[in-house]
Amino acid sequence: MHYQFANRINQLQGSPLRENAKRNMEAKDVISFAYGYPSIDAFPMETLKTISERMYTEFDPESFLQYGASEGLPELRELVKQRIAKQSAIASDDDLMIVSGSTQAMDLVIKVLCNEGDVVLCEEQTFSGAVNAIKGYGAKAVPVPMNVDEECIDTKVLEELLAKDTEHRIKLLYLIPTFQNPLGTSIPLEKRQEIYAIAKKYGLLIFEDDPYGDLLYFGDAIPKMKSFDTDDLIIYAGSFSKILAPSTRLGFVMAPPAIFEKLVLAKQVSDSHTNFYWQVLLTEFMKNYDFEQHVSYLKELYREKLTVMLEELAKLPQDAIHYIEPTGGYFICCELAEDVDEEAFLDYLFDHKVIVIPGNIMSVAGKGYEKFFRLNFTKPTIEDIRLGIQQMQDAISFARVEQVSKAI
Amino acid sequence: MHYQFANRINQLQGSPLRENAKRNMEAKDVISFAYGYPSIDAFPMETLKTISERMYTEFDPESFLQYGASEGLPELRELVKQRIAKQSAIASDDDLMIVSGSTQAMDLVIKVLCNEGDVVLCEEQTFSGAVNAIKGYGAKAVPVPMNVDEECIDTKVLEELLAKDTEHRIKLLYLIPTFQNPLGTSIPLEKRQEIYAIAKKYGLLIFEDDPYGDLLYFGDAIPKMKSFDTDDLIIYAGSFSKILAPSTRLGFVMAPPAIFEKLVLAKQVSDSHTNFYWQVLLTEFMKNYDFEQHVSYLKELYREKLTVMLEELAKLPQDAIHYIEPTGGYFICCELAEDVDEEAFLDYLFDHKVIVIPGNIMSVAGKGYEKFFRLNFTKPTIEDIRLGIQQMQDAISFARVEQVSKAI
Repeated sequence: MHYQFANRINQLQGSPLRENAKRNMEAKDVISFAYGYPSIDAFPMETLKTISERMYTEFDPESFLQYGASEGLPELRELVKQRIAKQSAIASDDDLMIVSGSTQAMDLVIKVLCNEGDVVLCEEQTFSGAVNAIKGYGAKAVPVPMNVDEECIDTKVLEELLAKDTEHRIKLLYLIPTFQNPLGTSIPLEKRQEIYAIAKKYGLLIFEDDPYGDLLYFGDAIPKMKSFDTDDLIIYAGSFSKILAPSTRLGFVMAPPAIFEKLVLAKQVSDSHTNFYWQVLLTEFMKNYDFEQHVSYLKELYREKLTVMLEELAKLPQDAIHYIEPTGGYFICCELAEDVDEEAFLDYLFDHKVIVIPGNIMSVAGKGYEKFFRLNFTKPTIEDIRLGIQQMQDAISFARVEQVSKAI
Repeated sequence: MHYQFANRINQLQGSPLRENAKRNMEAKDVISFAYGYPSIDAFPMETLKTISERMYTEFDPESFLQYGASEGLPELRELVKQRIAKQSAIASDDDLMIVSGSTQAMDLVIKVLCNEGDVVLCEEQTFSGAVNAIKGYGAKAVPVPMNVDEECIDTKVLEELLAKDTEHRIKLLYLIPTFQNPLGTSIPLEKRQEIYAIAKKYGLLIFEDDPYGDLLYFGDAIPKMKSFDTDDLIIYAGSFSKILAPSTRLGFVMAPPAIFEKLVLAKQVSDSHTNFYWQVLLTEFMKNYDFEQHVSYLKELYREKLTVMLEELAKLPQDAIHYIEPTGGYFICCELAEDVDEEAFLDYLFDHKVIVIPGNIMSVAGKGYEKFFRLNFTKPTIEDIRLGIQQMQDAISFARVEQVSKAI
């Protein structure tokens, strides 16, 4: 079924698996909740324009057009370290490298840590790019079941898997602890500490992927796992895709020294370094302009969109659809009730040009999540959020009739 | 000895192996012929500034700040195809993808073609980044001896290696046919055809790496190997690092369909896509500005530098130093005569703050090329080229005395 939906999406806007970045997704009459894109209003055009002009007139051309260090611009690396120390209480001595999005951080980490046949544990629903990175090096992505009520993987299963791994094939645990993709959930502090204690006991490395971490809309921030990494077990990756612009491909990775050295070599071999025009521009933005104010603006923008989507979802029959209300990030994940035929539901939506991502696409096993679908609320307009979610009312009715018809 | 020289370079300007892109190489009093950097005068600042301003004011922000397709901007891919069809007579139907420098093209190709223990044949002196890419996936880089007078690998050895390879471990032949790095040589047409005929006979894939191909200063261009690829055997990669700006990380790869599909997937997993600000800017540059005029300007600039370096080299005792005069590209490769102690020669230069790259660093085996060193002529000023090469006069005298002293 998953493929069938993939094909349907394909017809409308290209495969979400292979071309999750297709431009043509915004045909005028399509309402897309599909991809994790920032809003068209999210780009700080005036500031970018001002800094860019200054760079081309006042800056040494070699500072942003010549080859640069594989680790990235030293000043930017320091600014990012200071920023995550301040924003996320991460006061690690670990070194930090600028990479081409946190996607590249994961790709390099798998290259450096895994051989063919090695295992990376993942949340059972997770970012498909990470799973593809794991598979790309011949390693195995093994799902750890979720305890959805706890917004966390089942820590008992985690410990059992590690205890049984006498050959040490498990090389890494991949987690998106904050505003998870696709679930929108955040692992509570005590669960983060519990996972860390297990990792410590078994010497397990953890990749803490945090591309959405800045985008907290409600409540208090939960400390990053990296903030209590006393034992050099956590590789922490972040991104500017969601808070500056995805096209810039600016992300970073912070890793314990032994791993960091290898990551730098892998980065150099992979693409020499990340674009320096953008590294210099972001440095200026963070140093001399209103970067934090821009992030605050984004939080306002997306808080409103999330609020509207939750309002509209609340109007749907709550016995037909279940979702956890996220406190930040990009996504809401929904699960359909047993009596709602998922195929009919999604067919109805697609036929009415409302696009969502079916759950199996973000499932490590590629199956078992037929009843789930993911909604992005940052890219669509407020009006489209209202219209699109309202369509689900009829989609649910249609899909309930289908379910009954099938049983007859 | 190679490591000793590497350390010496390290002290002055960082390791050329691990950080070939170090910024601080240009301490005022150092004359560097080391890295393959464009001139500080090479960047078309006015045009870049004009297009950038227009982008931030007139263009849809999503066209260059949003996520984009992994393959790159369709319009740019088409323009690059048209350009290489015109400039290089490559009229292939193969698809073309924008990647982050031709370095990334090689990294992705190795990932897609090679398993651990597989073999990639290389020119015995070649780009160290390519060798590192091969090793990074557990494959083996095996050097094919050069026939320096023919400016080509020994085709007999090539054929023997293929004939013996009954288990088909040889997956690829990596070549820089035009203005080779580090040798500055270009494989003559008949030799290109001979290599292609051998590849055809054995079904061998060839990676034609062509980052310098545009920079022809004397004589006629030799047809690219890709231009006679009737049998889908050639992966062709090029770069805008040397003709626009390295920091942009803009390169491309053209490959037969079966390989192309896999490369796109690998690209997506690696870093989603290449920076779109620069893809859009380059598209504008090629479409509506004077891109070919800019390349002509670079050819003038570098032709003069090459001419001066050859003039100065000609003043050195020609029985002490041997080199092939290149007709384009970035490098001249020199070999010292038997009676010139290479360690003393390079020590003398380094002590007088003239930096070159010792031959072993660009040797696949990492040894056997003690007598060689590479000179870059694009980055240094005309004045520094004169001063630096003139230092070699004394370096040769010093090293000849050393050689004699050792024998006593």
